[in-house]
Amino acid sequence: MENEFIGWLRSELVTTSAKDSPVSVSIGDDAAVLRPLPNGMVVTTDLLSDGLHFELDRHGAFLAGRKSLAVNLSDIAAMACRPAGAVVSLLLPKIDAKAIAIECMRGIQALASEFACPIIGGDTNVGGQQLVISVTAFGIPLSDRAPLLRSTARAGDWILVTGPLGGSILGHHLNFVPRVREAETLHSRFQLTAGMDISDGLALDLSRLAEASGVGAELWLENVPISDDANLLSQRSGKPALQHALGDGEDFELLLTASPSDAEQIMRTQPLDSPIYHVGMMFAESGLFAVDANGIRRNLAPTGFQHGATS
Amino acid sequence: MENEFIGWLRSELVTTSAKDSPVSVSIGDDAAVLRPLPNGMVVTTDLLSDGLHFELDRHGAFLAGRKSLAVNLSDIAAMACRPAGAVVSLLLPKIDAKAIAIECMRGIQALASEFACPIIGGDTNVGGQQLVISVTAFGIPLSDRAPLLRSTARAGDWILVTGPLGGSILGHHLNFVPRVREAETLHSRFQLTAGMDISDGLALDLSRLAEASGVGAELWLENVPISDDANLLSQRSGKPALQHALGDGEDFELLLTASPSDAEQIMRTQPLDSPIYHVGMMFAESGLFAVDANGIRRNLAPTGFQHGATS
Repeated sequence: MENEFIGWLRSELVTTSAKDSPVSVSIGDDAAVLRPLPNGMVVTTDLLSDGLHFELDRHGAFLAGRKSLAVNLSDIAAMACRPAGAVVSLLLPKIDAKAIAIECMRGIQALASEFACPIIGGDTNVGGQQLVISVTAFGIPLSDRAPLLRSTARAGDWILVTGPLGGSILGHHLNFVPRVREAETLHSRFQLTAGMDISDGLALDLSRLAEASGVGAELWLENVPISDDANLLSQRSGKPALQHALGDGEDFELLLTASPSDAEQIMRTQPLDSPIYHVGMMFAESGLFAVDANGIRRNLAPTGFQHGATS
Repeated sequence: MENEFIGWLRSELVTTSAKDSPVSVSIGDDAAVLRPLPNGMVVTTDLLSDGLHFELDRHGAFLAGRKSLAVNLSDIAAMACRPAGAVVSLLLPKIDAKAIAIECMRGIQALASEFACPIIGGDTNVGGQQLVISVTAFGIPLSDRAPLLRSTARAGDWILVTGPLGGSILGHHLNFVPRVREAETLHSRFQLTAGMDISDGLALDLSRLAEASGVGAELWLENVPISDDANLLSQRSGKPALQHALGDGEDFELLLTASPSDAEQIMRTQPLDSPIYHVGMMFAESGLFAVDANGIRRNLAPTGFQHGATS
């Protein structure tokens, strides 16, 4: 089935490369070849598995494939870079291998087309115990900006998030649109100081950003945007919706910091199609704190979903 | 276990970067960051799974990990590039996850150190039905040479291989040394015209190289180097050792072409630590042919192991 599948891949997939793409040799050789990259590049990888990150029976291979690229593009967005290409490796169960592979690649292709991110290589293996999709994606920095790190926030910076949080398990984790365009708009028009995507929950991810930057962070609980799904889930779980917003994870919104003057301008002009929220500020004292509606400040436990991503 | 494992990764792994490495941000952010790449880069990926590419019970996680990087570095060598970095994603079974992860990364690290190929990111997931290791590796072209493609062989070129073939299943597939140094020596001193690594058997891989180049190939059977393991396996299987050499696969030797004048010089000077073999020539008529000891020329079926690698 592999040769046939590779034929299908070649005919279906290698059509998404943008005109200024650095890809000069795509699927078909021992490796893909990228032209000179004068601004360098960023590289990220995520592996998704049936039973852990999606359920093949319930969600289907299309959404599983789409998610596997989406989480990688979210990391590219978190670096404020533009997607340049991705490679996809599949481990397929024996039964229905070809149909699953094609549906999976169709889901990947749908998102790849949307973001002009060509699929430039991969590896297909049949005979696994479960469907596994491993994607590595490459991004190119915006022409006049360095990649946005999580280790460069400064005391005094405002903390911003690009959308409502929590309850992602109800569906958002499978069909979210990675915040690539939003990152590009913000990082090209304003001076962001640090950023990451919220994959493991706002509290945990903010504590990581603060720690990486050698500063502390204070969350203003009243300002944390709570998604409709977090409210819905709260009714089922009996836990406060805010707790879902702080800890559920897989929101794939951006967590950004900027100087007060830049952040104030972002908040005033609201340059995105969807609202940006100002949820707190960084300060010199290390640690993670929450300030409630009454102005009372407490330590906030950085709980959330502990994924294993190291990039 | 993830945070602890990532801590271990950071302390153990990020020490292998060569002085001229393009890696500026490694494990710890949303993505790794590479500096400007004036000669571009090549990208390859392979996914290895327990039961398909290794047997965890028999071979152990160290050799499984080592192999997962080795097959990727073999692709980098096939492009005549120098390894620049790799990302590693793991799907770990629940039982013994941490011990398996560490042994696996030790195997990867052993080879990464040997080739100054830093591990710059990854993703770790616990709870799979089987161990899965997915590696994506990056290579940088030699300073004055373009990457070596498989589609650029010309009629009249000689066909060379870098070592004996067949019987890899007896152990070579787990402990081979990717031909990175050999490719660099040959591609910097001589003008190679095309190349690939032999992963699916000489006959099948040569037919692919010929087809990609739009030419044909003739193998001189008497010149095909047969490994000791192919002879050993022949005694067990009852099949001729030559058949093992032509079709077993996972040899990870290089299949190269060069003009008669360059190839003659390579054969005469033998610039590698191990012998190079002249096994045939390319010609204009398409197809794959074998010439036997009596000079009789027949069609050769491109049989071999059909992997699913598309890069």
